[in-house]
Amino acid sequence: MTRAELLAQIRAKHSCLCVGLDTDIQKIPKHLLKEKNPILAFNKAIIDATKDYCVAYKPNLAFYEVLGARGWEILEETLAYIPATHFTIADAKRGDIGNTSKMYAKTFFETYNFDSVTIAPYMGSDSVQPFLEFEGKWAILLALTSNTGALDFERLKLENDSFLYQEVVEKAQQWGTPENLMYVVGATAPDALKDIRKLAPEHFFLIPGVGAQGGDLEEVMEAATNKDVGVLVNASRSILYASNGADFQEKAAEEAKVMVEVMKRWC
Amino acid sequence: MTRAELLAQIRAKHSCLCVGLDTDIQKIPKHLLKEKNPILAFNKAIIDATKDYCVAYKPNLAFYEVLGARGWEILEETLAYIPATHFTIADAKRGDIGNTSKMYAKTFFETYNFDSVTIAPYMGSDSVQPFLEFEGKWAILLALTSNTGALDFERLKLENDSFLYQEVVEKAQQWGTPENLMYVVGATAPDALKDIRKLAPEHFFLIPGVGAQGGDLEEVMEAATNKDVGVLVNASRSILYASNGADFQEKAAEEAKVMVEVMKRWC
Repeated sequence: MTRAELLAQIRAKHSCLCVGLDTDIQKIPKHLLKEKNPILAFNKAIIDATKDYCVAYKPNLAFYEVLGARGWEILEETLAYIPATHFTIADAKRGDIGNTSKMYAKTFFETYNFDSVTIAPYMGSDSVQPFLEFEGKWAILLALTSNTGALDFERLKLENDSFLYQEVVEKAQQWGTPENLMYVVGATAPDALKDIRKLAPEHFFLIPGVGAQGGDLEEVMEAATNKDVGVLVNASRSILYASNGADFQEKAAEEAKVMVEVMKRWC
Repeated sequence: MTRAELLAQIRAKHSCLCVGLDTDIQKIPKHLLKEKNPILAFNKAIIDATKDYCVAYKPNLAFYEVLGARGWEILEETLAYIPATHFTIADAKRGDIGNTSKMYAKTFFETYNFDSVTIAPYMGSDSVQPFLEFEGKWAILLALTSNTGALDFERLKLENDSFLYQEVVEKAQQWGTPENLMYVVGATAPDALKDIRKLAPEHFFLIPGVGAQGGDLEEVMEAATNKDVGVLVNASRSILYASNGADFQEKAAEEAKVMVEVMKRWC
């Protein structure tokens, strides 16, 4: 999906909501366990309930891989169910030497037809580059994440007085364009959102950490949006598990709607 | 597998060779393409040819994921074929927020029964910790990799005058022990091998980059071994694709044997 197509969808829906599909069999409503494929049934129900409110879906690969080969089939079936209008993100945090990253890029962009994949920057340029070479596909590079471990390395001060996450963004600005590269910036640090927005004024940010992880949506929108909206705000657990009863679809939709009510001022 | 079991195997074989199973259908001998499952047939043939020389096998996940769900079945069948005596490494470069890393740990240690998995450190402690909580299982953390991109971030100088890769090792020394944590250190930088050995005198290193990537084996052994050998040296392409004719098993075995001839002085 191109940047223009993504933006058109955001403007049409007045939403930049991404729903994270971190589907955990332990957490889905008990009545779904009698389905032949409970995880797929849950994903389809969540997609039905939220597709009018969100512009993107983000399956978290760990939750599918843990099921073995069957998990990858469920992932494929889930992907097939997501409307073609919606931007898709493989939240996979991949990254390896060039010839291996190329295989990962083929995995997510060709074997599966994801629009984008999240990438860890540690191994540098040749680990990221292969993801930038597919027409209409995107690399979403970790800059500053929403977890406590972000303090260990991402927020280290470098000799040149930058933080590591700033250096990641500054270098990556030379690798990709606003048409094929986004950054992951956690909602839990609005100061850093502003700061990274200065370094990358045009690029989209994928922002996790609103909801279950404690980030404040209004503050995030204020700090991170740009003239083309420029953000996808993810919510996973707060929408998926808004209820674990028979009303889980209704509650998921309500939760999504509440977020969009806040977002629309900026979208 | 425990450290004592791994070391016993190294001492018995006088080898610390790890064979990387980066199996690419484009590169395997053409006569195997008529097999029902050419990649599995190739992996089994390579395992047969090299198992007396090596102590570990390291499937590179990208080469299986690119095949979709079928690739994970091939991975599982390959793993089942590796003798129980051999240490197994899922070269997966995973790492995410705590609840997601926990799912990845379950994937590789429970769904599949790997002994270890490679981890990217960027997201910090809570992204690594879940891999350290399984009895007899190992996290293998990226410290300094063998690719050119290592210059971008891993070799950045920090405010405290350390390189980032040194800080990664220093912090991780507090998270894991020589019984559950190894480091990836590329063969292409013998200076860094010595340096990381000082920071982590007891820990095993997984050393890629000998062979196709240009690292010198003797120099690596000299720089990185400790009193308990303390290294697993990986070779992938130089062994797998030593020949693409009918003699590929013979040539792979020869290549492995040549490496072990060098290694035995230290093993």
